[in-house]
Order: sequence, then C-alpha cells, then structure tokens
Amino acid sequence: MSFSPLVSQLIEALRCLPGVGPKSAQRMALQLLDRERDRAMHLAETLKTAVAQVGRCKTCRTLSEQDHCSICSNHKRDVTQLCIVETPVDLLAIEQSGTYQGLYFVLMGRLSPLDGIGPAELQLDQLEARFQSPEIVEIILATNPTVEGEATAHYISDLARKHQKSVSRIAYGVPFGGELEYVDGGTLAHAFQTRQII
Amino acid sequence: MSFSPLVSQLIEALRCLPGVGPKSAQRMALQLLDRERDRAMHLAETLKTAVAQVGRCKTCRTLSEQDHCSICSNHKRDVTQLCIVETPVDLLAIEQSGTYQGLYFVLMGRLSPLDGIGPAELQLDQLEARFQSPEIVEIILATNPTVEGEATAHYISDLARKHQKSVSRIAYGVPFGGELEYVDGGTLAHAFQTRQII
Repeated sequence: MSFSPLVSQLIEALRCLPGVGPKSAQRMALQLLDRERDRAMHLAETLKTAVAQVGRCKTCRTLSEQDHCSICSNHKRDVTQLCIVETPVDLLAIEQSGTYQGLYFVLMGRLSPLDGIGPAELQLDQLEARFQSPEIVEIILATNPTVEGEATAHYISDLARKHQKSVSRIAYGVPFGGELEYVDGGTLAHAFQTRQII
Repeated sequence: MSFSPLVSQLIEALRCLPGVGPKSAQRMALQLLDRERDRAMHLAETLKTAVAQVGRCKTCRTLSEQDHCSICSNHKRDVTQLCIVETPVDLLAIEQSGTYQGLYFVLMGRLSPLDGIGPAELQLDQLEARFQSPEIVEIILATNPTVEGEATAHYISDLARKHQKSVSRIAYGVPFGGELEYVDGGTLAHAFQTRQII
C-alpha cells in the first residue's frame, strides 16, 4: 500500500529539487494537493515558462531570458573591469553589496579535475575570447575561497596575464560581524599577513 | 538589481512549497535552470496532471484519482472497523505498520475553533452519514496526540456513541526504540497509569 499512482509520481518528481528528501517531498505533494492547488498550478506554469525561455546571456553567461542580460546591456557599467564568478548567485551577491560597477563573466562551475570538469567543460575559450577585448583592463577573480575555487582563480589568472591584463583577487580576511573565536586558523593567518596600516 | 523577471518569478513561485524560504527557493530555481531542465519540465508536467486529476475518495476522502481509493474498493478489508485519521499521511503511516485491516475516514484537518475550523469545516456530516452504516461496529480514533487532536477525538467519540458504535482510542505510551530520558513527563505519566500486567 502506498499513495495513488499520480500522487506517488508527484512525490518522486519533487525530489529533483535540491535538499528535498522522501519525507519533505511527501509533505510538499500533500500540502499542494490538499489546499494549494492554485499555487501548485501557478508553479507548474512558471516552471514550464522559465525552462522554455530562460537561457544564458551571450556575453556573461548568467541566466537571462534576453540575449544580453540587464548588466551587459547597461551602458553605465564600467567596461574596463571584468569580474569572474562561479555562479549567477555569486553575481547577485556582489551586485547586492553595491560596490562593483564593472562587468561579469559567470563560469557556471569551477575547475574540478576529479569530477571531470576541465577548461573545456567550463568553455573557458569564451572567456579567453572576452580577454581579447582591448577595453578590459582589470580582471577581478571572485571565485569561492575553496580549494577548487582557488585552483580555478589560479588558472584564469595565468590566462589573463597572457593577454596582458591586470589581475586581482578579492581579499581574504575575517568577515564583518564575525567573531575571531569562530574564524578558522587559515583565515586568521591570512588576515594577519595581509594586515593594513591604518 | 536582481535576477531576470522569469527567474525571479520562478523563485517566488517555488516559495509555495512548505519549508522553502527565499534562499532555498533561489537555490532550487538556479539548480533547475542550470542543469536539471529535463527534470524541471517533468516536475511541471506531473504537477499539472496531479492537480487536474487527483481528487478525493468519495468514501474515505483520502487523496485519490479514482472515485473510490484502493482501500475502500478492496473487498478483503474488514468493514466492521473504521479508523479516523487527520490526514492522508497518517493513513499511510498506519498502512505501513501493517497492523490494521479495516477502513478509514480522513478528516483532512482537526477541530481548531481558534482557526475557525469547526465540525462544519471538516464536513463531519459526511462522517455521521458513514456512522449510519450498520456494518460498522468499532470506531478507532487515531487523531494526533495534540490538544486539538484530542478535542477532535473527543467530539467524534460523542458522535459515534450517539450511533451506538463502540469507540476506541489508540494507546499512549513510550515509543518503541525511544529512550525514557527523552520522553516527556506527560507521556511517561500516561505510560505508568495505563501499564499492563505481563
């Protein structure tokens, strides 16, 4: 005995969502069918439309339903700076901090040889084509401070220097509002080495 | 600055899922669009089909795409017992325990006067109509052991006695595999009071 076939299928389908296990999927399916059918229908329609219409920006590769996203097509942005991020979420986080006015390039991942993700899989030739542009002066590496993010940053910095670009990496240090007690040793060591005279 | 309109709409639509806040919805939307478009499309289709076709069993009110669910239409079930549960999930939990062979009635909620849920909202007249059946001998109350579940059980037991049915409530006690240390005082007190001679 289990749920009726269609309910079981819905529970199974919901498991494609990240972080959703069998119990959550069951709760979701029943709540949607029990009292949120309008919103469920709306979700289904939105999902279909988004999958059908959202593609990638041809310039920076972030998710966008236009050929060129709102940042790449904004003429007020500083075209001399190009910031490299791993995902559209990272791009959004930087935008929300409100400090950066340049352009972006979204890697859509990071180099990870063990998982078979090399320069070809990330289509870094697109990035290199971008480096050809004489407008771009500085490359800002904003990949995650993980082993793979670091390796990716290192690889791209070599690539950028080949094209005579100035390369920078976002600073490591103790996070704002954090407590030193909970900051790991590596970060703290880095924060000491790169301390600034005030 | 935020995501493109369609991506933002998808993030907003995903928030209809229980337990999904803004950050999870964002992660879900990006993961689906980034590398699980086939599964996202499948989810959209399954959701539409389920919302369109899954209704309620006319007899027990559990979710079912048939007029009568597989339990109600199974002639091997014991028609003398009727178990009252709050939701289809509770029904499933009891089925999976494999101890019960009778029929069910799903309340689709519980009495909760503060939320405006009274006997009319739970359509308890349907349950009362069921009580008219001379086949049913015993009513087993399996609502949750919460204040509202208790109140609901109490109300239904009065209703059932009016129709000369025998009424029982599932036992309270310490859960199998639990440790007494973590069992609350009320449960433990109940377990002592209703102890069985062995």
